[in-house]
Order: sequence, then structure tokens, then C-alpha cells
Amino acid sequence: MPGTAPVRFAYLGPEGTFCEQALRTLPAAAAAERVPCVSVADALDAVRRGEVSAALVPLENSIEGSVAETLDTLAGGDPLHITREVLLPVSFALMARAGTTLDGIATVTTMPHAEAQVRAFLRTSLPRSRFVAASSTAEGARAVAAGEADAAVAAPLAAERYRLEVLVDDIADNPGAVTRFVLVGRPGPPPPPTGADRTTVVAFIADDHPGALLEILTELAVRGVNLTRIESRPTGVGLGRYCFSFDAEGHIATQRVGEGLAALRRICADVRFVGSYPRADGTPTDERFGTSDLAFTDADAWVEALRRGE
Amino acid sequence: MPGTAPVRFAYLGPEGTFCEQALRTLPAAAAAERVPCVSVADALDAVRRGEVSAALVPLENSIEGSVAETLDTLAGGDPLHITREVLLPVSFALMARAGTTLDGIATVTTMPHAEAQVRAFLRTSLPRSRFVAASSTAEGARAVAAGEADAAVAAPLAAERYRLEVLVDDIADNPGAVTRFVLVGRPGPPPPPTGADRTTVVAFIADDHPGALLEILTELAVRGVNLTRIESRPTGVGLGRYCFSFDAEGHIATQRVGEGLAALRRICADVRFVGSYPRADGTPTDERFGTSDLAFTDADAWVEALRRGE
Amino acid sequence: MPGTAPVRFAYLGPEGTFCEQALRTLPAAAAAERVPCVSVADALDAVRRGEVSAALVPLENSIEGSVAETLDTLAGGDPLHITREVLLPVSFALMARAGTTLDGIATVTTMPHAEAQVRAFLRTSLPRSRFVAASSTAEGARAVAAGEADAAVAAPLAAERYRLEVLVDDIADNPGAVTRFVLVGRPGPPPPPTGADRTTVVAFIADDHPGALLEILTELAVRGVNLTRIESRPTGVGLGRYCFSFDAEGHIATQRVGEGLAALRRICADVRFVGSYPRADGTPTDERFGTSDLAFTDADAWVEALRRGE
Amino acid sequence: MPGTAPVRFAYLGPEGTFCEQALRTLPAAAAAERVPCVSVADALDAVRRGEVSAALVPLENSIEGSVAETLDTLAGGDPLHITREVLLPVSFALMARAGTTLDGIATVTTMPHAEAQVRAFLRTSLPRSRFVAASSTAEGARAVAAGEADAAVAAPLAAERYRLEVLVDDIADNPGAVTRFVLVGRPGPPPPPTGADRTTVVAFIADDHPGALLEILTELAVRGVNLTRIESRPTGVGLGRYCFSFDAEGHIATQRVGEGLAALRRICADVRFVGSYPRADGTPTDERFGTSDLAFTDADAWVEALRRGE
Repeated sequence: MPGTAPVRFAYLGPEGTFCEQALRTLPAAAAAERVPCVSVADALDAVRRGEVSAALVPLENSIEGSVAETLDTLAGGDPLHITREVLLPVSFALMARAGTTLDGIATVTTMPHAEAQVRAFLRTSLPRSRFVAASSTAEGARAVAAGEADAAVAAPLAAERYRLEVLVDDIADNPGAVTRFVLVGRPGPPPPPTGADRTTVVAFIADDHPGALLEILTELAVRGVNLTRIESRPTGVGLGRYCFSFDAEGHIATQRVGEGLAALRRICADVRFVGSYPRADGTPTDERFGTSDLAFTDADAWVEALRRGE
Repeated sequence: MPGTAPVRFAYLGPEGTFCEQALRTLPAAAAAERVPCVSVADALDAVRRGEVSAALVPLENSIEGSVAETLDTLAGGDPLHITREVLLPVSFALMARAGTTLDGIATVTTMPHAEAQVRAFLRTSLPRSRFVAASSTAEGARAVAAGEADAAVAAPLAAERYRLEVLVDDIADNPGAVTRFVLVGRPGPPPPPTGADRTTVVAFIADDHPGALLEILTELAVRGVNLTRIESRPTGVGLGRYCFSFDAEGHIATQRVGEGLAALRRICADVRFVGSYPRADGTPTDERFGTSDLAFTDADAWVEALRRGE
Repeated sequence: MPGTAPVRFAYLGPEGTFCEQALRTLPAAAAAERVPCVSVADALDAVRRGEVSAALVPLENSIEGSVAETLDTLAGGDPLHITREVLLPVSFALMARAGTTLDGIATVTTMPHAEAQVRAFLRTSLPRSRFVAASSTAEGARAVAAGEADAAVAAPLAAERYRLEVLVDDIADNPGAVTRFVLVGRPGPPPPPTGADRTTVVAFIADDHPGALLEILTELAVRGVNLTRIESRPTGVGLGRYCFSFDAEGHIATQRVGEGLAALRRICADVRFVGSYPRADGTPTDERFGTSDLAFTDADAWVEALRRGE
Repeated sequence: MPGTAPVRFAYLGPEGTFCEQALRTLPAAAAAERVPCVSVADALDAVRRGEVSAALVPLENSIEGSVAETLDTLAGGDPLHITREVLLPVSFALMARAGTTLDGIATVTTMPHAEAQVRAFLRTSLPRSRFVAASSTAEGARAVAAGEADAAVAAPLAAERYRLEVLVDDIADNPGAVTRFVLVGRPGPPPPPTGADRTTVVAFIADDHPGALLEILTELAVRGVNLTRIESRPTGVGLGRYCFSFDAEGHIATQRVGEGLAALRRICADVRFVGSYPRADGTPTDERFGTSDLAFTDADAWVEALRRGE
């Protein structure tokens, strides 16, 4: 079809990762070309260079916390915006080449992040096995298929892809684990507000004074803007120098979020807006008394009339 | 001169009060008709009815505190705006009919407010005299002239007016006392900002929750707006129900004061703007980092651009 | 009776004031000698000099607000403690000599505080009468009995005392007005906590920085201590210099109030404790999560154990 | 030597890591047995089981941020206390078997954490090489010595240990990188305060309300306790459920830190004290007005005297 660029989505590969599984849940991506990348940074750089329309990358996990590489890649370089989020229950399986038994497993491989989530299982069921780090769960599965390790901890999709056999399913120590992925594109108008939205921001402290975080939180709290995640990240200049990456409830299109972001812009050295987008869990934003758009519009009109002497 | 209403100024009378003395310091009033009123409420009602252009009334005194009648009359009824303030050093004199000696003084009269400021003097110099309340310092002087009391405590101007003799000058217990008067007119555009301005406001609490005052102060503090006076006043509904009357540094024309007032409007049951006007002491408003008009304009433009996807 | 000092109570006189009426509601005072004083300062000084056991004085009124003389006399001079409070509904009557009719009233006298509470009645029912200030409501009644004025606005008790006739009863513009009186004695152990207590304090700001009041309120709020009254009072040094007089819910014997007062002591130039005493309205103090005495004791023991290495 | 247990220190191994290098800077450890562990969790569990006296593990890095495994292992399980910290400048070297040239490097291995710190170098100097994840920098060096990869990024100490040749020294993208290691032992009395101390704490939120972090920060701020690090960590229960791991300036032996920790204990579901210990950088703790031990002791004595009625 001349004149129409093919829609391509990058994701944290290789094929068979949870990230691919999450990407497949997006209708737009199901029919599009999916491009595995070796790192979050590579996936996001492909977006920056315009090689793909968007990239799906993990942002945080209910067990392991934030994914530092994602936070840092979004905080620096050319700006990118999150337009969507996907929540995926994490279901780890122990997989090996056909014919392998638990007794025969000397080495287990997976990414360290995943190993942390199945540590109790490994200690109990494979007490004598040795852990070998892999750069992703799917890469671990590939290594097992290639005979470089005896077993892998990975998404069930990886067993299919690398023709491995699932020995034990659902081996996560904490069965309710969820990973939150975000779809990241080049800057543009945010998706329209739905009433159940989230806004992601990175705030860089103006000068390293002790109360900076308290000030930021107060600016948002007075305007009725709640946070659902906050991380301090080093700025690379030295210990004790941080920026803060956070998710706030609500959409930049609303007055309270807009005024809150403007306040941060005034008091911080820099503020990077990383997107306003619908929450995957659909939880509507709580609206405290006096913080509706109507309340803001009425109050602004009142001040304007007083300034004019009406 | 047809078509030109004569300029008339009301003040808290009778003639010879400190208030008249303060009014005479205003160039516009020096040449205008000056109308004494028997109470602050009468003076302000004369403004409301359009009988006078403006009224000068006392707002607070460095010894006795706020003048409750002024605060309450400004807080209720038709809105009025302060456009100017005058600071007047308070200089009390003991005055009597010609020929009176200290020994011959059995009764001393003045308004209770003034009596409180010369109490130590009276105890020391006139230990056996009896205090008789008058409704103003000048009314006390009139009563002495009429032979209804032996001596009065009043402004030196009152001795002149009522042909009394000053027995002792500068008798205030605290020699640095200052009274702050405000010139009050009907609502209109505030005088232009000078960089050394004050804004007077009354905030009525939305529901009587314990943290209401803390919330109001926080809304102003986060925007770098400092207070120079705050009073709680009963709303008349019962004990424990208050409104707050306060003076903030800065002018409603500035972004930080405007946004702060808008925030109070959103979270309070009602907010009454009582004027932005130059400070008589000329102290320039301190401007905290990130609260200049430029900072606000830049931040708002940034948010607008993000909303449009630029 | 040798060795037994007679119990004497001072009050804001003269006889027949609301204050005497309030004092009579105290069982201990009913049988004791009651000493009228010409001013709040005189009543409190009688306590300081040991001439009376205690004094009952008005602290605030639901219409007129705080009584400045009471606040200031408690804030300065030798320390005094409030041990009790009395709430008295204010019921004003218009009274005159027998045979007087409304038409025959040219002058009405009462204290200015009281005049403010019946202003609407006077304007409507006695539009042509002139107001003459008296130093107390009872003094006004005495003046009417002596023929110095035509009618007085005072407590019904005053009509009885000065043999006047009540022309109109219950003339207060706002029928629900209440005055709060406090019983003040020399410092000593506070009355035991009842669970429905109040603590009165005066805080003097360390240096006149804009956020001082916000800091004080925050110190109390973080410890779950709510305020029921707050007044700024001038320190007499100049405009813009204040101390804060406030009532907090709870008793100094509780950990949260004790730690809150200690915090003010640390950050203020001076803090004056003016008493912990039962609330007359019996409203139990709300106890926020984590601020019970048990919570404090547990937390302190925890820190102590950690310091010892247990 | 009967009765004397040999002093043993665990560290994050294998031999040749930065962690071993840091451990060697401690005089006590220089002469003691040093036990490499395969993970932070293993090192800390060895302390818990009493197999070693203490363990040195990385806590944060000025480029990569906090080490999640360290934070989480300290936050759960049997309590452990930090007693010391070591700051080590991070100096990465590219190392290979003797005779290797840059052109001949197809695979580079190191731990992903380290790879992130030399990414720019690798893109520029080894654009065609492939990255292979290792579980530690020293493990990467071992793999290169064993011929499993062509080059490793590791501490210079690792080259010595594994007889590799340093091809390029100081290859970190950000030359000022510092890693902070902490020495962790079983609970006991903290080392005495030095005036330049740090206190590490984990706070678990009582119920997941939006303002919890703001409350925690306010409790510390009002007592003049500054933070030098704060991390939110998932509690594993679901997204949006966090605990906060932070370092505060000052020592639990001081009143302000003790009262601040007690306050957190009261308002949080749980608070874990992880130690008070000297800062490696020797920066003295800033002491805000009104927060010295003397100020606390004076204020507490004042409240106690008031309670007794003195």
C-alpha cells in the first residue's frame, strides 16, 4: 500500500519474553510487525530514531520494583511519552530439554531479576543446582535449547518458542506478581482523559537541599494530586544527588495536574513530562473537594474579575 | 461646578481623633470635605451608600492589636476595598481645663482602648483617680471641656480643638506605638502594583475541620506568599467557628498572589477580597525562587505546550 | 477561725455582670466571698497578689471574639493558670427606671462590646436614641439608676440589682451568643485529665520569619493536636510582631500534648503554658491513630531498646 | 586459641570484586578471614546464621542507584544492623587474555549493572562486540580466563586475580562514579555517635493512603532530620504497595532522631531500624535551631515541671 509506513512495535526481546506476551494483548500490535530488542535502551532508541512507532518496555514489577534501565532511559536523552500501560500477571515456569528430570539439573539460568522471584522454589526443589545469569528470561531458554545450561526459568511462551518442556509451572515464590509495561512513543498530544488516568514525570532538584522532596510532594498534595509510585534515581553526579521519577493520578488535561506540574516546573531545576495515559486497572481518579476543573475555572474567573475591579 | 460631586472623606470621629490626624496626611483629603462618624460601622456604611468617596478607619494598633469592629464590618455587608494605608505614631497627652493640676484630678476619661495604653502612667502619676469610659479619645476631651470629667487622655489635636491644656505629653506606656489606618472605598480596580504591596483577605472555613487554618497557610506558603497579619474572628454561629482575616505581602495582580487567592477560593466556603494596595512602610515584597511572574508564565506556557503535544 | 483563710473569688464587676452570673454557677463560688473588680487586669492581679484564690474573667464571646485584655494580661506578668471554664448563654435585656417608655429613651448606655451585639435591635427599635459608652454592662445599669442615662443594655441580673424595669428581654441580634469565662488561679498541678480537656498556650515567635505560624501549627498537627481557638496578639514592639494565643484539644498530661508543647518550647522564643482543664461542653478529645499514650509509650520503649542494642 | 572465635567477614564475591577491594580498606578485615559469597542474600544470611561476624555488601552506586537485593534483604528476614560504610571510587578496566587486541573482541562480559556504566565506551570502542551477562564483574573475568568470552569489564583487582591483561583502564562513562558499601552485623548497640552519622531505616506504610510518604517526611522534617537517600520498594503484595528505605542524617542516640523514629513507629505499620553509624565522608550533621539534645532536654524538663505544677 504505497504511502503507508508499516506499523512496527519494538519490545524487550528476545522473542518469548513476558514483554512480547504483553505486547500481544494490544490490538494494534497484534496485527503489526513486532521487533525484539536486546535492551530497553535499544527499544527506546529505535523509537527515538523513528524506526518503530512505539516500544513496549517493563516499568515496574510488584516484587522487584522499578526497572532502573527504563526509568533512566526515559529520564535522559530525547523526550519520549508513555501513551498506554499493560499489566501482566507474571507466571514463571521451569523448563528444560525433553527428557530432563529435576535430579539431572546442575545449572539453572534466567535473568537475575527473575531469579529473585523464584529463589525460594530453587532452594527447595533444586538445592544443589547452580545459578547462571542470563540477560533475559528468553535468552536463558535459548541457552538451554543450545545445551549451554540444564534448565531455564522463563515465561511459558518461551518453552513453546524454543521447543522446551515445562517441568514445573507457576513456580513464582509470590503467586500474585504483576509486571507493568508501558507503551512509549515520540512526543505528541496525550491520549484524551478518561477519568482513570496516570501521569508520569521526572523531577530534577534545583539545588540539593534536604527538603526538596517534601516540597515537591506538598505542591502536588495541596492540589489534590496523589502519587501511585515514586522512585529516587541518582543523577550520576555523586551520591546524594537524585532526581525523582513518579506516577501521579490524573491527566495533564485537568487543571489540578496542570497547575501541579507548573509548580514543579517553577521550583525544580528541570521537569520532564513522560505522558498522561489511561490506567490499565481502570481505577477512577479520586477528586478531592475544591480540585475539580469547575472549581479551578470558577476560582480563576473570580480572581480575574477582581483584577479588573468588577 | 455642575456635574462634579464634591469629594468627601469619612473618618472615625469626632473631630480631633488620631483618625482625623491620619486623614490629614493624605494629600487628596487635605483639600476635601472631612466627615466625622460616630463609629467605624457608620463610616463604612457611608461609603457603601455612596455618601462619601472613601473612609479612613483604624485597622490595627501595635499595642492593642486589631480593631475588631473594622475587621467585622469589612468581613460582612456589601464588599468594600482598601486602597491605601496610613501609619501614625500614637502620641497620647493628658489634658484638662486650664488651671487644673495633677492633684486636682479625680476622674480621667478616654476610650478603653486608649486607657490600656497609658495604664502604667495612670497608676504611677494619678493613683487615686477613677477611670470613666468614653466612646473615643476626642469624646473624652469634649466631656472634660463640658465639665463632665477632670482630665482626658487623647491626641494633642483634641486639646487644640476643645481648648484644653496639655498637662503631660507623650504618656503612652510604650513609646513606639503605631496605629495603622486604612482608606476604604467601593470595589473597583485595585491601585497598580508598586512592588511593595499588601493584600487583605477574609477566608471563611468550608466546614469546621481542625486543619483548616493549616491548609490555608500551606496554600499561601507553597506559592511564596507571606503573611504580615492574621486574625481569627468568630462567625457568630457559636464558639469554635471562625473566619480568618489576614494581610499577605504582594498584589493580586501578581501571579503568585492570584493563584494563592484562587486556591483559597476553591477550598474555603467563601473568600472575600478586601484590596491590594501599597504598603505605607514601602518594604518591597520578598520574591522567593520560582514565584516571579516570569516563572509562572513560563511554567503555564510549558504545560499548555505539553497539552497540545508540542 | 485561725489558720483558715476565707475562700474568695474575684470577678469582672461590678455586681450584676454576666461574669458574676457565671461565677455563681460554680458550686465552690456559691458559698464563697465574691469580689467584684473594675477590670480584668485588676481581677487577675488580685490573684497574683494572693488576695483571692481565683478570678473568673471572660475569655471569648461567640459574637465579639476574644477579650483582648484577658489574653494580654494572661500573656504577660507573673504566670497564671486556667483551671476551669464556664459557658454562659448571653441574654441581653433593655432596662430603664420604672415608668420609662421606648419613646422616652434618648440615651442608651452599655459597654461597647455589648452594644455591638444589639446594634440591629437599637437601630430598629430606638432609631433616634444616642449610644453612650459605659465600662461594663452593670456600670451602664448603675448609671441609668443614677439618672445619668435613660436606658441600659445589660444582663437581667443587673435589673434586679439596680431596681430597674426590663422593657424588652432577649434583644441580642444573634440569639445563640455564648460567652466563655475562665477561672484563673496561681500556678499549680493542673486538674486531672478527663478525656475532654483543653490546653491554653501563648507562643512567642523566635524571630519574625514569615512561616512561624505555619511551623507552630505543623508541630501540633503532626502529633494529632487540634486547635479550637487561635489569636494573634501584638507584642507591643511594632506592627507585624505577634505572639499567638491558642486553645488546643487535650491535656498536658497526655504524651501528644506534652511532646507538642515541648516542640513549641524548642522552636519559639518563649512559650507560656496557661493551663489544662476540663472543657465545659464535655466534648471528648478526638484521638488520631498513633497518638494515644500507649502508642507513645510503646514507641519510646522501642527507641530505648534500640539504643541499648536489644 | 581456646575461647576465641576467628573473625570472619563475608562479602559479595567472587574474589576480585569491588566489594573485596572495599573490604580490604577496613583495618579489622585486612587481618581477618574474608569469605566470598555468590549473592548479597547469601552474605547476609551468613551473618544471620552466625557463620561470619559481619558482611560487606554494596548499598548504592552514584550511577546505577540503589542495589535492590541489598535493600530487600535488609528489609525482610531477621534484623541486621549496619555499623559502618565504605565509599569506593569505581574504576572499571577492560581486560582480556594476554595477546588479545580490541579488534579481536567479539564478546564482552560483565554484570548488567556494570555494563550500564561503560555503555558509551563499548559503543564507541567495541561497536561490533556482543554483550554477555555475567552474575558479577569478577565472574566475568573468570569466564574470560576460562575462554568463555573474549573480554571482561571488571575491577583492576580482578585482572590480577585471573591473570588477565588490562587493555584499557578507567573506561567508566562517568569518571566520578562511587559505590557505597555497608558493613552489616547482627543487632547490638550502635557504634557511638561521632557528630557525622547516618541512620538507615525501612518504614512500612500503615494503610495505603496517598499522603503516607508526605507524612513520614513531615515527621522527620519538623524535628530537623534530613534525608540523604530515599527509595520506595514494593512490598510484594501488589503494584502501588510500597515500603520506604531511607538514610537520615544523625544518630539514634540523639533526641531528634530518636523522637523522629518513635513518631514513624507510631504512624507506620512497622518500622525497621537498620543502624546508626559514622558517615564515610565525615560530613558533620547540620543541627537546626531548636533540635540540639540540650534543646530537647530543656523542653522535656519544662513540660515535666508543668505537669507537676512547679
